[in-house]
Amino acid sequence: MTDVPRIAGVLSPVVTPFGADLAPDPERFVHQCRWLLSQNVGLAIFGTNSEANSLSVDEKIELLDRLVGAGLDPARMMPGTGCCALTDSVRLTAHAMKVGCGGVLMLPPFYYKGVSDDGLFRSFAEVIERVGDARLRVYVYHIPPVAQVPITLGLVERLLARYPAQVAGMKDSGGDWSNTKGFLDAFAKAGFDVFAGSETFLLQNMRYGGAGCISATANVHPEPIARLYDTWRAEGADAQQARLDVIRGVFQRFPMIPALKAAIAHHGRDAGWATVRPPLVALTPAQSSALIAELDAQRFTMPGLAGR
Amino acid sequence: MTDVPRIAGVLSPVVTPFGADLAPDPERFVHQCRWLLSQNVGLAIFGTNSEANSLSVDEKIELLDRLVGAGLDPARMMPGTGCCALTDSVRLTAHAMKVGCGGVLMLPPFYYKGVSDDGLFRSFAEVIERVGDARLRVYVYHIPPVAQVPITLGLVERLLARYPAQVAGMKDSGGDWSNTKGFLDAFAKAGFDVFAGSETFLLQNMRYGGAGCISATANVHPEPIARLYDTWRAEGADAQQARLDVIRGVFQRFPMIPALKAAIAHHGRDAGWATVRPPLVALTPAQSSALIAELDAQRFTMPGLAGR
Repeated sequence: MTDVPRIAGVLSPVVTPFGADLAPDPERFVHQCRWLLSQNVGLAIFGTNSEANSLSVDEKIELLDRLVGAGLDPARMMPGTGCCALTDSVRLTAHAMKVGCGGVLMLPPFYYKGVSDDGLFRSFAEVIERVGDARLRVYVYHIPPVAQVPITLGLVERLLARYPAQVAGMKDSGGDWSNTKGFLDAFAKAGFDVFAGSETFLLQNMRYGGAGCISATANVHPEPIARLYDTWRAEGADAQQARLDVIRGVFQRFPMIPALKAAIAHHGRDAGWATVRPPLVALTPAQSSALIAELDAQRFTMPGLAGR
Repeated sequence: MTDVPRIAGVLSPVVTPFGADLAPDPERFVHQCRWLLSQNVGLAIFGTNSEANSLSVDEKIELLDRLVGAGLDPARMMPGTGCCALTDSVRLTAHAMKVGCGGVLMLPPFYYKGVSDDGLFRSFAEVIERVGDARLRVYVYHIPPVAQVPITLGLVERLLARYPAQVAGMKDSGGDWSNTKGFLDAFAKAGFDVFAGSETFLLQNMRYGGAGCISATANVHPEPIARLYDTWRAEGADAQQARLDVIRGVFQRFPMIPALKAAIAHHGRDAGWATVRPPLVALTPAQSSALIAELDAQRFTMPGLAGR
């Protein structure tokens, strides 16, 4: 479809660190992103798990610039750039292209509910047209439990027909494998890259022609998830998947974003990481202790994280 | 509770005009707001019906500045300032205070679903604390069909206990009178001003101690709605309410925001008004004709609107 190298594999919707004043902390952010890259995990910064919609566009641009300024490879970045406001999405997407990001993950505008595919097509089309960059690679983001505005097969079909180079793939965070498989069956052969929304479906996704996964728990368990991506055809892949599912299962027993941050705070020996922006709330001390105990019981570690 | 004059009566979540390039049109906006004030209707700019979440913070600040610059009275303005991002809400609320707005209508952060009242309390509290202005009057905005994040009695109780001066009231757009009545019963006597989310409940709201209504259809039917507010104790109020319900019923048979704009385009003789920003779509010509025919059948007019 094009000769720009495509993003593939495992990406982390990188959690965003905040100071005590709730301002984003670029130093912690760069440290975390560098660690994730060292674990063979790409950077889907500004995702749902990044509290991205709790950040202004200016704050996101500043964080992205800090990553690129620190020498991290923008080709491995797929920032979330879909906002409610067309002008915000255009501004953030254009900035991502300016600094050379390998792709962007784009939520539909999510305030109005029950909007038509015509309206969503026009939303994505206006961003693509206004950014006007042949290198743009858009991954549409289906996450109905949160955004409540779904990405349908019909919408992707229309977008691909009109923008075959720019519409590169999707992330499916609906949690419904049959939906993911529907997109794979319809579009994978045409070069549309489907990322599962969690490692729960990583092996299945690869077996049916998918491109990898973008998963909350890649923030804390990156190398084992990336290893399954690298070795999914090998013997033992199912056992690897089962182990990943156990660790994810622990995190899913807690509110996910605060739990990811609590694990980073503990294993990175950096208590400030536990801070979340409202409307989220941090784990209670009792919840944190329970999480760490459950992880310890699974011999969970985060090698190489500590030592900022 | 305080001696700052409170906003009361009927307000319009003013629809936002866009040019052919989808940029907000400040001239049409000023014209429309001036007309609404002349019809005895206040300006709840940047509401749901304003496509406010389809605008960037910069675009909203520019539009607000243009209204104030044109000499419209900021004491009659209650801009929507609640965004997903804390920093956006703070910036927009602080600007509204700087130019002297009589109040602000504040959505909860609406991206994350199922958030706790603790998290929502902290969201509103952070905005109030960071804006740090004793004149601030916050009206919390309950619109679960769209935002999907409700405002509960318990949340308002906590906010009022902590910020009795700043937490001034609410808009209830849930469409459930029993919920509105619950808030009136609990807080109206303490000076908490409850605005119904449409004129459908205006008479009931006044009879139970409410402060007025903030209604989509106040964009197009302002004077008759404001008249019911002024005369709700008089004989004939129920007949007035019934007439309002008929006109609202016509609009409710169409997608509301495009229908409001189509009516303004027709009765204001200004076709450009029909433009909406994605993800919304304008009425089709057939829908527009059907709307206008239904309104004509009800002898609906918009006196004084034409002639920009």
